Amino acid sequence: MNDSTRTVLLVLGVLLAALSVAKLVPAIVDLNSDAQSAHAFLGSAAVTGFVGVTLILMMRGGGRNLTARGAILVTGGSWAVLSVAAAVPLKLAVGDMSWTDALFEATSGMTTTGATVMTNLQDQPAGVLIWRSILQWIGGIGIIVTAMAIWPMLGIGGMQLFRLENSDKSDKALPRAGQIAAAVGIIYLVLTFICFLAYIATDMTPFDAAAHAMTTVATGGFSTHDGSIGAFTDGGSDIVALVFMILSALPFVLYLRAVQGRPDRLWVDPQVRGFLAVAGAAIAVLTVWILVHEPPASGQLPAWRLASVNAISIMTGTGYATADFSLWGGGAVGIFFCLMFIGGCAGSTTCSVKIFRYQIAAGAIGRHIERQARPHVVRPVRYGGKALDPDAVRSVMSFFFIFFATWVVAAALLSLIGLDPVTAISGAATSIANVGPGLGPIIGPAGTFKPLPDAAKWVMIVTMLIGRLEVFTMLVLLTPGFWRR
Amino acid sequence: MNDSTRTVLLVLGVLLAALSVAKLVPAIVDLNSDAQSAHAFLGSAAVTGFVGVTLILMMRGGGRNLTARGAILVTGGSWAVLSVAAAVPLKLAVGDMSWTDALFEATSGMTTTGATVMTNLQDQPAGVLIWRSILQWIGGIGIIVTAMAIWPMLGIGGMQLFRLENSDKSDKALPRAGQIAAAVGIIYLVLTFICFLAYIATDMTPFDAAAHAMTTVATGGFSTHDGSIGAFTDGGSDIVALVFMILSALPFVLYLRAVQGRPDRLWVDPQVRGFLAVAGAAIAVLTVWILVHEPPASGQLPAWRLASVNAISIMTGTGYATADFSLWGGGAVGIFFCLMFIGGCAGSTTCSVKIFRYQIAAGAIGRHIERQARPHVVRPVRYGGKALDPDAVRSVMSFFFIFFATWVVAAALLSLIGLDPVTAISGAATSIANVGPGLGPIIGPAGTFKPLPDAAKWVMIVTMLIGRLEVFTMLVLLTPGFWRR
Ligand SMILES: [K+]
Ligand SMILES: [K+]
Repeated sequence: MNDSTRTVLLVLGVLLAALSVAKLVPAIVDLNSDAQSAHAFLGSAAVTGFVGVTLILMMRGGGRNLTARGAILVTGGSWAVLSVAAAVPLKLAVGDMSWTDALFEATSGMTTTGATVMTNLQDQPAGVLIWRSILQWIGGIGIIVTAMAIWPMLGIGGMQLFRLENSDKSDKALPRAGQIAAAVGIIYLVLTFICFLAYIATDMTPFDAAAHAMTTVATGGFSTHDGSIGAFTDGGSDIVALVFMILSALPFVLYLRAVQGRPDRLWVDPQVRGFLAVAGAAIAVLTVWILVHEPPASGQLPAWRLASVNAISIMTGTGYATADFSLWGGGAVGIFFCLMFIGGCAGSTTCSVKIFRYQIAAGAIGRHIERQARPHVVRPVRYGGKALDPDAVRSVMSFFFIFFATWVVAAALLSLIGLDPVTAISGAATSIANVGPGLGPIIGPAGTFKPLPDAAKWVMIVTMLIGRLEVFTMLVLLTPGFWRR
Repeated sequence: MNDSTRTVLLVLGVLLAALSVAKLVPAIVDLNSDAQSAHAFLGSAAVTGFVGVTLILMMRGGGRNLTARGAILVTGGSWAVLSVAAAVPLKLAVGDMSWTDALFEATSGMTTTGATVMTNLQDQPAGVLIWRSILQWIGGIGIIVTAMAIWPMLGIGGMQLFRLENSDKSDKALPRAGQIAAAVGIIYLVLTFICFLAYIATDMTPFDAAAHAMTTVATGGFSTHDGSIGAFTDGGSDIVALVFMILSALPFVLYLRAVQGRPDRLWVDPQVRGFLAVAGAAIAVLTVWILVHEPPASGQLPAWRLASVNAISIMTGTGYATADFSLWGGGAVGIFFCLMFIGGCAGSTTCSVKIFRYQIAAGAIGRHIERQARPHVVRPVRYGGKALDPDAVRSVMSFFFIFFATWVVAAALLSLIGLDPVTAISGAATSIANVGPGLGPIIGPAGTFKPLPDAAKWVMIVTMLIGRLEVFTMLVLLTPGFWRR
């Protein structure tokens, strides 16, 4: 066993040990109220902890080297293995849950997708509900760290643009990546806590506030209520969700810079500006659409509030809903469908294509069109004032192709399994973009994924993992060439 | 006025003069049967001819130079201007046709899309029916010549791969592009005539045979009957259509090579192989789907025949139908939707993305994935045994982005105009890919585009032109920078 493989297994061991500790939370929550659930989480915590600690003991002293192959393996492997480990207590704690459903729910949690196979959430054991939120919360910080520490090194889908070392060469005192990750982790924790307090202030119970704070900051979207955040609008919780979904869609490293005395970085960042511009435009168009086609009656939420909460929820891939926007008519449904494919900023908890890739692609296309008319003018694509390496531009364009190709393949598979076109196409989209709800009566904001055939759920499980790991991570793992020495 | 502009106007004059001559055909056809139609075509032929000849006289002696800007202008300009010139007699000849409808029908013809706003085709003046076929036939040869003579020079969407000079450096005796274009024109004519004879052999009237031969070889899809080619299945005309749609989807320059004694070129061409492989796979999957989900009753066409004719029709963007495949269920609809985005070979009359771009993109993605696992291995993308210029690969990837972005924008606009999602999404797809029918009850194979609001028709008119001219031609024209000196 070489050095890199030992490192991979060591990291996996540490993550499993941590997951085992996390499983104690739902066990404690259900200790006096639901023996089945408490035992499920306690037992599974013991097994997970045993495996994790064994791996740590066997691999400790293993190298600290991580090759590119090792980095891909540790990323893809930990998401897959942790999803399985997270699924076991769900299967054991909930009476009528199949193994497929448990793995779907756990993967949907770990990938912060938020698609659910569970109904009557209000009647489920509290431990199960908090476990779903914890999974998303872990998945959220996991993706921020991966996006800062691993993908830039691999050059996945243009993420090399966000190399920490290169991003601020002027700052010699910059601590190294590990320390930055730890600092960002603290910011994640603080943001979650502030969100928790804000939810409390809008009359949520502490339990609901904690569960929703974790899934808001993770832009995950699991709720404790079938009505999603829409069940809590009386106290204004949807506005809290709106604010914190936006905050969680911005690059977390910029909050660190703000704390370090550079809050101006937030305002000049091209991703932040792009995100806010697209969000503003989407909300404006959607508000007008609602006013024209579905004017809210008195007593209902005003149009701007319906538009902004639901648009930001889908754009950031959170997946909360305060209305069944599937019923708002063609134009609105079209906008929501497009918003699924936008996402937030790189280095946030959001998924999907992300703003910077659209900005870079637009720049590349502009240059290309320019060259068509003036073949002898060659100018580099610029982003945030810097000329881009052609390799990064190529990565971004490849990302688009492979992202949408994966979506089409997933949609085709779901169609062949027998889903109707709207469910198949939107189901594939919501899986690859890790949004949560799809469109239509089955998997729309008012439905669940429970009625789908098992084969469809498996397609979605794989698609969620592919999407969450920026497509290339999983595809590289699935390439035979990767496994050849 | 500079040299290049004079050349552009001279070419436009020649094309208008030719169109004027073409207008005499429907005038003669309707001379004894429909005075309104005959007068419409005669009068419009006179005006078109006058404008064309005037331009020729004013610009003759103008330069033979064509800059890149001029080439873009002449391509985009001629399709737009000829569509307008072709629309006028349609408006005047058909009683209840609006100007928008006439321009929609003419543009749909010139771009070989085949979407129609006309119903009761059997009761329309014969001259109008033959005019629609002539438009597609002109559009078909127009695109082959443009794809051979202009796009390779501009490097539009990777078409630089098909530079005639470079494609066969070993052959010093190769005549120059103009002569090749003329030779390919003769092949186009001969193929149309053989197709005409084959249709006659399947009991079509000479009129129907001529009309369908022109729209088959152009992969255009206009028919003389509301039932499309499905109205002629008794004699087996759908099988003739199948054969000639496939032949028309292959690169015409390879037929020239075959005539020159190199028929082997057809079998080794990567585009031809890719096209046949995809077509075969689609037909196989679709046949199985039909047998499982919609087994044909006795007296109906067999499954393989329904699958192959309709799949090849949509894949090549012809748009004939022998059944309302909208009703075949999710999997089949999904396959047809995907087939819209495939197309045929570059240098044929087909539209859409085209096979070679998928092949090159797959190669580029493969290389990219390879580099993710082995960052230090750098190998070029290869196509047809040759290493590709990175610039060509970039062109291809840009094409994908801009093609699908245009589709999404068109679908969003159609949604906002108020079309339902299926009509909006498939209407945008069928416009950008120049296929013809969409999906759903309104614009599906059994419907027409007539009921759509005018605004939707205008969006589609522009989208058809953008799609037919490989997206970049029109987008460059729409760029303000293009018009600055
Ligand atoms: K989500
Ligand atoms: K067509």
